[in-house]
Amino acid sequence: MAVRKARSRDLREACIQEALAIIETAGVERLSLREVARRLGVSHQAPYKHFESRDHILAEIVARAFETFARHLDERPRTGDPYLDLGEMGRAYLSYAQAHPLQYRLMFGTPLPDPEQHPDMMQKARHAFSLLQDAIAQLPDRRPDQDSAGRTDLDALFIWSTIHGLSSILQSDAAEKLDLSREVLDAAIPETLRRIGMALRSTENQ
Amino acid sequence: MAVRKARSRDLREACIQEALAIIETAGVERLSLREVARRLGVSHQAPYKHFESRDHILAEIVARAFETFARHLDERPRTGDPYLDLGEMGRAYLSYAQAHPLQYRLMFGTPLPDPEQHPDMMQKARHAFSLLQDAIAQLPDRRPDQDSAGRTDLDALFIWSTIHGLSSILQSDAAEKLDLSREVLDAAIPETLRRIGMALRSTENQ
Repeated sequence: MAVRKARSRDLREACIQEALAIIETAGVERLSLREVARRLGVSHQAPYKHFESRDHILAEIVARAFETFARHLDERPRTGDPYLDLGEMGRAYLSYAQAHPLQYRLMFGTPLPDPEQHPDMMQKARHAFSLLQDAIAQLPDRRPDQDSAGRTDLDALFIWSTIHGLSSILQSDAAEKLDLSREVLDAAIPETLRRIGMALRSTENQ
Repeated sequence: MAVRKARSRDLREACIQEALAIIETAGVERLSLREVARRLGVSHQAPYKHFESRDHILAEIVARAFETFARHLDERPRTGDPYLDLGEMGRAYLSYAQAHPLQYRLMFGTPLPDPEQHPDMMQKARHAFSLLQDAIAQLPDRRPDQDSAGRTDLDALFIWSTIHGLSSILQSDAAEKLDLSREVLDAAIPETLRRIGMALRSTENQ
């Protein structure tokens, strides 16, 4: 019985790894439980013992991506200065995106499975976003008034947009093909983080 | 002879339209001159009279996208205030991305054909980027010193990252699935443009 359980867990994990391989080599639109079974050399029905549908295996892959992404953000160096801390979070975000382009694309560049059907995935996605919201809430002059939640979310959207956009541009060939100098590309991350800090510190906020 | 020339132009244009349809329905990786010919019901060789290769037809499609994109940016309302002008450019950028998602993805989300081989495409891409550089150069306190080119490019990267990232996030389902309120989503564009303005106006620049 113990052996059968272990084997069952092995198959579950093998399905996930094979699904990742399909997404990586053929694209997420080619993912199906049938293809997972075919590549593992098991019966068509075998993956269904562990996953109700193709969306369920995708949701688990996306959930794991959000989990490791959030852990990576959370393990950033802590400085005690809330502006520097946001900068460290930005660097951690960019280093995750560069090291795990497939997971990054699944989280932020692909339509996600229906959140109603996959609450665990959504809980992990929201947890990652909440790390950014929490870091913003540490900034000075944030008063817990009735607008503060909306204000934090707008700042989170601004910061996320800037870092997400920079990540896409640096990973594309656009920056290189636009004849930007090596110096500009090397300075792009620290300068963009500095600009975000300027925007958040601006006296226009008060 | 005039008729033959007109027909030849028609086939050239038909190839481009069919290539766009292939990219839209099947993805850019499925584009080939053979598939264009098959769908048009012409001989396999016919498209080669007009395009050396699949990359040449793609480069023309991308070049046209950059051309209409730059025209759209250039037709923004002019206010005379360089900060408001950058904001109008941001709005024009976002409205193009929303109205032409396919062209937008081809310009900024797909590996471009080799720029050495397609100078017309690259000239049009650089022209679009130069509109942003020109608008930044109009900001006050920009001194034509030795660092100004690098500084303008870094500001261009910051602004482009922020707007490109916001465009991706608003077009994805991420913002909705994160339970952001309608008010936050409605305010996202003006607030992000305001943050960009704050960063550019910051006294830390001086």
